[in-house]
Amino acid sequence: MINKGKIVIIGASNVGSAILNKITDFQLASEIVLLDINADKAKGEALDASHATSCIYSTNINVHAGTYSDCRDAGIIIITAGPSIRPGETPDRLILAKTNIKIMNSIMTEITKYTKDAMIIAITNPLDVATYYISTHFDYPREKIVGTGTMLETFRFRRILADHYHVDPKNIHGYILGEHGNSAFTAWSTVNIAGMPLEHLDECFNFSQKINRQAIEDEIVQVAYDIINLKGWTNTGIAMVACRFIKSILYDEHTILPMSAVFEGEYGLRDIALSIPRMLCAEGVVKSFEVKLTETEQNLLFSSAASVKNALSCCKNL
Amino acid sequence: MINKGKIVIIGASNVGSAILNKITDFQLASEIVLLDINADKAKGEALDASHATSCIYSTNINVHAGTYSDCRDAGIIIITAGPSIRPGETPDRLILAKTNIKIMNSIMTEITKYTKDAMIIAITNPLDVATYYISTHFDYPREKIVGTGTMLETFRFRRILADHYHVDPKNIHGYILGEHGNSAFTAWSTVNIAGMPLEHLDECFNFSQKINRQAIEDEIVQVAYDIINLKGWTNTGIAMVACRFIKSILYDEHTILPMSAVFEGEYGLRDIALSIPRMLCAEGVVKSFEVKLTETEQNLLFSSAASVKNALSCCKNL
Amino acid sequence: MINKGKIVIIGASNVGSAILNKITDFQLASEIVLLDINADKAKGEALDASHATSCIYSTNINVHAGTYSDCRDAGIIIITAGPSIRPGETPDRLILAKTNIKIMNSIMTEITKYTKDAMIIAITNPLDVATYYISTHFDYPREKIVGTGTMLETFRFRRILADHYHVDPKNIHGYILGEHGNSAFTAWSTVNIAGMPLEHLDECFNFSQKINRQAIEDEIVQVAYDIINLKGWTNTGIAMVACRFIKSILYDEHTILPMSAVFEGEYGLRDIALSIPRMLCAEGVVKSFEVKLTETEQNLLFSSAASVKNALSCCKNL
Amino acid sequence: MINKGKIVIIGASNVGSAILNKITDFQLASEIVLLDINADKAKGEALDASHATSCIYSTNINVHAGTYSDCRDAGIIIITAGPSIRPGETPDRLILAKTNIKIMNSIMTEITKYTKDAMIIAITNPLDVATYYISTHFDYPREKIVGTGTMLETFRFRRILADHYHVDPKNIHGYILGEHGNSAFTAWSTVNIAGMPLEHLDECFNFSQKINRQAIEDEIVQVAYDIINLKGWTNTGIAMVACRFIKSILYDEHTILPMSAVFEGEYGLRDIALSIPRMLCAEGVVKSFEVKLTETEQNLLFSSAASVKNALSCCKNL
Repeated sequence: MINKGKIVIIGASNVGSAILNKITDFQLASEIVLLDINADKAKGEALDASHATSCIYSTNINVHAGTYSDCRDAGIIIITAGPSIRPGETPDRLILAKTNIKIMNSIMTEITKYTKDAMIIAITNPLDVATYYISTHFDYPREKIVGTGTMLETFRFRRILADHYHVDPKNIHGYILGEHGNSAFTAWSTVNIAGMPLEHLDECFNFSQKINRQAIEDEIVQVAYDIINLKGWTNTGIAMVACRFIKSILYDEHTILPMSAVFEGEYGLRDIALSIPRMLCAEGVVKSFEVKLTETEQNLLFSSAASVKNALSCCKNL
Repeated sequence: MINKGKIVIIGASNVGSAILNKITDFQLASEIVLLDINADKAKGEALDASHATSCIYSTNINVHAGTYSDCRDAGIIIITAGPSIRPGETPDRLILAKTNIKIMNSIMTEITKYTKDAMIIAITNPLDVATYYISTHFDYPREKIVGTGTMLETFRFRRILADHYHVDPKNIHGYILGEHGNSAFTAWSTVNIAGMPLEHLDECFNFSQKINRQAIEDEIVQVAYDIINLKGWTNTGIAMVACRFIKSILYDEHTILPMSAVFEGEYGLRDIALSIPRMLCAEGVVKSFEVKLTETEQNLLFSSAASVKNALSCCKNL
Repeated sequence: MINKGKIVIIGASNVGSAILNKITDFQLASEIVLLDINADKAKGEALDASHATSCIYSTNINVHAGTYSDCRDAGIIIITAGPSIRPGETPDRLILAKTNIKIMNSIMTEITKYTKDAMIIAITNPLDVATYYISTHFDYPREKIVGTGTMLETFRFRRILADHYHVDPKNIHGYILGEHGNSAFTAWSTVNIAGMPLEHLDECFNFSQKINRQAIEDEIVQVAYDIINLKGWTNTGIAMVACRFIKSILYDEHTILPMSAVFEGEYGLRDIALSIPRMLCAEGVVKSFEVKLTETEQNLLFSSAASVKNALSCCKNL
Repeated sequence: MINKGKIVIIGASNVGSAILNKITDFQLASEIVLLDINADKAKGEALDASHATSCIYSTNINVHAGTYSDCRDAGIIIITAGPSIRPGETPDRLILAKTNIKIMNSIMTEITKYTKDAMIIAITNPLDVATYYISTHFDYPREKIVGTGTMLETFRFRRILADHYHVDPKNIHGYILGEHGNSAFTAWSTVNIAGMPLEHLDECFNFSQKINRQAIEDEIVQVAYDIINLKGWTNTGIAMVACRFIKSILYDEHTILPMSAVFEGEYGLRDIALSIPRMLCAEGVVKSFEVKLTETEQNLLFSSAASVKNALSCCKNL
């Protein structure tokens, strides 16, 4: 029987440990298992987190380092393993893709020895390459694999607009879609703030200048590199994305959010994983939605698809 | 007017950023300001955390990098700055003390330009040296300064016993007292599990061997070094301690917890800061308690005091 | 000085006690004071709630019955007092208005003896009559008074659509505006589900029949009477509305939500309180937004205004 | 298969609806089903609560009225049904026992048609009579039935002492044991505040008079009747007890708390249910603890047992 309260995190470095700590803080599991090829790191992070669970306000979550056999009865498995972009690097995404595909291969080979029942949340970059690869090469139920994708860009977009208009980001609606990374694009036609177009807000706040959409689009992609250069890595935002997905799964929420999964003909696309709005619940990714996009936006989606397909083709013969 | 919802964190490295993230997760502030001599690190951590606040489940907390002038209307200031012990180091605590006293001096000089109203939570090591120094050299209201002290050791103690008996750590009662660090001691006379002595538990669970108190005492101190050696630093446990203290302050809880502050004759001690049970509320550390200790335990407290006094004396002429 | 953590609830019957309990559960105050002309009821509810705060997971919130002098340092005052509609009643809203205006008068007379600094959240029905009256007759800072208004209808709308499409209500966007009560109207032009028009969802889910908008509009108003007839009163939904507003205030969120306040020329209206989207933060209701409405929707807003003005005019000579 | 996130509440009046709302507030389930012989009440409470789940801060919990067949895949079933003591009544506990045993019989007959896997939390009074009856007459796994028992008295005790000493109730340790109700007794030998005996606190706070234990014991029992007389019923405190138990079950916490279950020879007692410290986890009540009691306390436990046995014997031939 699946123990829904058991979460396995594969990869205990910055992202994995940030996810561990947010899951603990939000009390989203009764047992959390941490795996890393650096077993010491997994053990150290688990040990440190376990001391936080002694607090009177915390539930007695069983946090520990483990092995792949822990996947057997896990409800959710989160894959964060693999090298990341480092400060100052011009990321050669193809090299990253090749390295991480190999890592995904060994991870999925291990996981599938023990389960095909757990929800898998993929976070390793290049995200859409990784998501496509694990969804299509291991006979794992397709709906049980989801990549965090442009949910993170969407969080960033909300914060940027929220800061610009000095408004609650929960009032910012709209999607960043496509590839998680450089070719992500803002679907402006889906954007509104509390039900109002941006221009209306510009008026309401007596802004002398209209909002600069291009600047915002650039910032959404650039801010990831900014954070890497400023602090050395990114992990807090993505950890919150993981927890958002976990909540939708645990509470069977049927939430529609941008997330990456394999296309089955949406917008005419196949053989690719990218983020579009999809519905997440206890059963997994149960539906995808072809939000109406402008022609420009559709072309940006196609460019994004082409970009990811290119990376995928380079990984074919691995 | 103090804005109780504003928290300033000084030091944005592992500990500071972990505290930032836990405060955000637990929604303990409406504004969080991060300061670091490495301004980029503060900015990067704040930026990353700000993206997490876009999540629909999060309050719109204003997270940003700032300057000491942000202390002006802060409700709580948390000091985490200063170098830490690194993996493999045999920590020369006197050298660490000398370095960090200088850092405390410059930090307090800045803080006191703007406020003497905020609660200050000290975390920098050697914790009791730092707590004593900032409590006695800047004419800051004594009750408004608290060091996290052996609350962390107490969390660790609870987890160790909880794992041993496979019981909720919230059922483990009792104190680790004295210095935060090597001379911390377990006040076994205060320990019980759910109202029962440990021996009773040994019986209940049919353990063939009685619990090894010395091994547990050693582990409480050693586990800090273990975590440092395994993951490179400790931050999760201490971040939870900070949040526990923040909750007592924000909710005016009048909680009795082990924490470090300057002695005013308790157990005959003065001119020293160490952890004993004290009461924390919105007004600060309003009371301390001379829990009845055995003679052995009192002697351990006096040794702890001697050890910290020695470190303090070496810092006198800085 | 205002203690932001202190909340005074006036009225300890079904609504007031439900709010007390939700504030306690969500830990939104360090002190909660309950007032009622039936002092026993206030005392009993406070006593019962205080026992819940003993739980290890709860903060030590100080819950107690009190008097109007408790308003002196309150951060937020919530007015729920006054008779409600009972099961089976055809509510004579004018009689209810007359009774409750008198009650509002005596409450505001008391409150203003002690403070003009606290945020006031009005919940008593007829909500818009009450909100208008207390906003205009006591020289209280206008931005510091807000009526919960059609936020409740908006919650109900979201749930109804969420159940219809089996989707997370957090994905349902759009406003119910106007009067809280019979003349509330659905601003369909503001409605979307996860960025998609309803028709798109009908398609996505292969619904043979398009959604019946009239039926939904009717249900939004009717469900309040249904709950009253089924359980005897309504209180849970409205308690959540109050907590949503409290969070925006405490965390200074600058959230745009439908809420009732006095019009200052929006849509050409004055001398009336009704719900339209407004921005709520620590300072109060700092902005209102004239969301673009269709002509039909504007006419519904004007009808709503006429309906409330009629009720107000009958109360003029009280 | 059990859906751990599904909770069924039997009885939708004051206690049942308070539990529904606390479970919703604390997000302890993904589905909550409400049953009542008054189907309208269940439907109304569920409908009202469902509107609260529309709030952006709430998970999309599926709250609805249901039938016993909903027990089939429930993780937890909570029994609150049956008449309660009313204001001013001198409760004839034997009559209450007879009535409620009949109700328990019909409820358990229904439940066991669908499941013997769910944890059952009994709340109906007389609690220990009900707990014993359902534990012994339906071949339901013994460890999967728990009565809330004197956990509620223990909460009340903590609050009373916390108010007396003006200290966080989370610092108050010790048990009220025996019968839930009139013969509950304070096991003073287990009581301490933050590791200190009460006398020490009296000294610390310079109280001229020592605490009056008899007065406190009386208040613990009396306050239940006070609340009933003041507000008409009790429900908030007991709802928190239910949630505390649910957390221990969901998070597999292995928490030791006072709770009612059938004795298996503890303190020489059998054929009776009363509260003593027991360990609760996902598997249920897995252990009980014979905390060392003074002779006086043991005699109070035996009196309590006699009192409940008397009530039970009167119900034998039902």
